[in-house]
Amino acid sequence: MTLLILMPGKENSELLKALKTLNPNLDIRIWPEVGDVNDISFAIVWNHPKGELKNYPNLKVIASFGAGVDHIFKDPDLPKNIAITKLVDDSLSGQMCEYVAGVILNQRLRLTEYREYQAASVWAPKAFKSGNNVSLLGLGHIGKEVAEYLVQLNFKVSGWSQSKKDIKNVTTFYGQSALKQAVHDADYIVCLLPLTPKTENILNKSLFSMAKKGAYLINAGRGGQLNEDDLLDALSEEKLSGACLDVFKVEPLPKEHPFWCHPKIYITPHSASMTNIKKAASQFYDNYLNMKNGETLFHQIDPDREY
Amino acid sequence: MTLLILMPGKENSELLKALKTLNPNLDIRIWPEVGDVNDISFAIVWNHPKGELKNYPNLKVIASFGAGVDHIFKDPDLPKNIAITKLVDDSLSGQMCEYVAGVILNQRLRLTEYREYQAASVWAPKAFKSGNNVSLLGLGHIGKEVAEYLVQLNFKVSGWSQSKKDIKNVTTFYGQSALKQAVHDADYIVCLLPLTPKTENILNKSLFSMAKKGAYLINAGRGGQLNEDDLLDALSEEKLSGACLDVFKVEPLPKEHPFWCHPKIYITPHSASMTNIKKAASQFYDNYLNMKNGETLFHQIDPDREY
Repeated sequence: MTLLILMPGKENSELLKALKTLNPNLDIRIWPEVGDVNDISFAIVWNHPKGELKNYPNLKVIASFGAGVDHIFKDPDLPKNIAITKLVDDSLSGQMCEYVAGVILNQRLRLTEYREYQAASVWAPKAFKSGNNVSLLGLGHIGKEVAEYLVQLNFKVSGWSQSKKDIKNVTTFYGQSALKQAVHDADYIVCLLPLTPKTENILNKSLFSMAKKGAYLINAGRGGQLNEDDLLDALSEEKLSGACLDVFKVEPLPKEHPFWCHPKIYITPHSASMTNIKKAASQFYDNYLNMKNGETLFHQIDPDREY
Repeated sequence: MTLLILMPGKENSELLKALKTLNPNLDIRIWPEVGDVNDISFAIVWNHPKGELKNYPNLKVIASFGAGVDHIFKDPDLPKNIAITKLVDDSLSGQMCEYVAGVILNQRLRLTEYREYQAASVWAPKAFKSGNNVSLLGLGHIGKEVAEYLVQLNFKVSGWSQSKKDIKNVTTFYGQSALKQAVHDADYIVCLLPLTPKTENILNKSLFSMAKKGAYLINAGRGGQLNEDDLLDALSEEKLSGACLDVFKVEPLPKEHPFWCHPKIYITPHSASMTNIKKAASQFYDNYLNMKNGETLFHQIDPDREY
């Protein structure tokens, strides 16, 4: 019943400390210092090397160090029939609520515009930007909270998801064929989807062509959901008025990437919601105990849907 | 029963058109083309020349073209016993709600910081800024709505005003002696007060010394409420972490003013809430009819309190 931390390139000491605080006797290994692979029953993973997870014959739970599990399914040699869990952290959804609202209000209030005027000592008052229709793509745990938060702020919110959802005061749509209805009236299109084969490159030319001219795109889902060339085209054709991106196909975003210096693109460095290590540790530990006691795991994902 | 528009330097054509749409037969004069001063009974004013209002012997109502009336009381020759009204526009308070929330979230999310990193192609994710205590100075019509809006956003809100107020889920304080209690725990101090002799220079060294180290100041009240030198001192001593200012002693803010290029000061050009001309026109017209019919005026201010 040993726990493995398998997160290459991540600083693990804080997580290790938090787990040891919960139970000083836990047997924890940090990859690549794994010891006997037969010991490992529970693995906390983030961007693990492909093929690595098939090396643990007694592995029972793969726990994602984040709300997304797409990084796990990227592995073509992912062992079958092992439970996969995601992190569900209220502070993650709370941060995402603030992120989406903050980015939209930044646009509405023209705060970035005024910052540029300030640099030139220019006084140029303008009315707020009009339009308060927000379309959320993705109505899972986080998307639902963001929808409710924006409703409180008097935004007119619609939402789209793969399966049917009901959220008070939110117009909901589901399934591929309803995507056009979901976005055609939006001033802000916000992607909060999980990355799955169905959502890969969903933010593309076709979706932008369904949108209202001048809509603003916010991607806080996954970089793999955005067709980057299609975004550049939509911006240069003024189909979209701008975009704020928190996630990218490659992170950190490479220095030479054209997004960095694009005047209509606002970049935040995957900072929309950051895992609270203590809360994460306690959620991993709870599930470790559930596994040990043969009880139902929290936040197990459906391997067929990949989220 | 003639209506005068007395707003030097303002573009009046939109207001004139909106009033004429409400009643094409209204007799409207635009200063300085006043005609017979005896005709004028209702004056819509914004920054009128001092002494001008005493020239109208039949003036019954002075209507401010804005939520503030301080610009009227600046006139030492203001005629006595004439009703003064202010503009109360839901879109003004709605805009102010968004402004205050947008500025706070901009800080919390470090959006301006990331914009600077972006200019240098630097990827540097950080956690949100901690601290969500907001202290509102001013709990009038606008302040109350802002307080309620921030509560919805999960901020911990306290408020201060001259007289006692009760607002659900907001800790309220009143009177000069309670100012310290109102601000000492705040991460964000937001001024929404009317400008009166009591509130002039209220944002000064003494108030900053009561605040928590690192508090952030937002002034969307009036420029006359801020002691500018005291702010510069508080920023250089790191008593305050920064300030976002929408209003200034002189507007437009003069080109040579040190605020423009101060790294810790964010300037918005009195854009936090801008009068909706159509709504304003209909409010002026309603009060014009009230005056004509001898009925109670809407939104008449108390001349002793000056708000």
